[in-house]
Amino acid sequence: MLTNLEHLGLAVHDLDAATALYTTLLGQAPYKKEHVASEGVDTVFFQVGGAKLELLAGTTPDSAITKYLSKKPEGIHHVAFEVDDIRAEMTRLRAAGFVVLNEEPKRGADNKLVCFIHPKSAAGVLVELCQSISAPDHE
Amino acid sequence: MLTNLEHLGLAVHDLDAATALYTTLLGQAPYKKEHVASEGVDTVFFQVGGAKLELLAGTTPDSAITKYLSKKPEGIHHVAFEVDDIRAEMTRLRAAGFVVLNEEPKRGADNKLVCFIHPKSAAGVLVELCQSISAPDHE
Repeated sequence: MLTNLEHLGLAVHDLDAATALYTTLLGQAPYKKEHVASEGVDTVFFQVGGAKLELLAGTTPDSAITKYLSKKPEGIHHVAFEVDDIRAEMTRLRAAGFVVLNEEPKRGADNKLVCFIHPKSAAGVLVELCQSISAPDHE
Repeated sequence: MLTNLEHLGLAVHDLDAATALYTTLLGQAPYKKEHVASEGVDTVFFQVGGAKLELLAGTTPDSAITKYLSKKPEGIHHVAFEVDDIRAEMTRLRAAGFVVLNEEPKRGADNKLVCFIHPKSAAGVLVELCQSISAPDHE
């Protein structure tokens, strides 16, 4: 079961400009900036009630965000849902016919294990599942 | 200030099919189905932790969702943030240069007063502000 809408990821060209824009829009400053070298992205996080807004800018030509923005305009890139046991959910959803894009969970931003579900499986939405690494991770 | 990520709105062609899909994906059934005649939409709501997922299908040719899906694929249509005082936020954001698409708040689904901010103002994201009608609505 997906237990919370954990965050919404926005792909942006200019992270500083988007951070200033969303600081004004939301009426609050971000709580964290994080570089995720493995994904080739710089990220900025805002906490908005029970969910987060994550701004993502690519830092390398082969980053998923750089590639995304070479084909599509800025906007919502993915929605992430929290799960208690990411491997169990990956197994459950594969069995139900969803295309899970990762064989194994990988390390994402914000101290999480993550995987992605193909938008073709989810009515056009790139869905991320994420599990906090502090939670039990049944190896 | 925007106090919570209240819901994420998904534009879909086939509401029953999308409802079945998201019931499986989320691992839970929706809690409400609502027809909003003024907007020409049928909606289905899921509660996922502190936020909702709203599936939207157009029921008339001039519905915003019907028009959207005539030009774009299914996917995330808008993100809605809760506010305590929608008129105060509309004034604040207009003064900061955001394009607020409604002169006055209007009645939306789920017993809310709502307004929208143009995606060009918000890095490509159609942003909805919503205020529960049960909350004080400073006329």
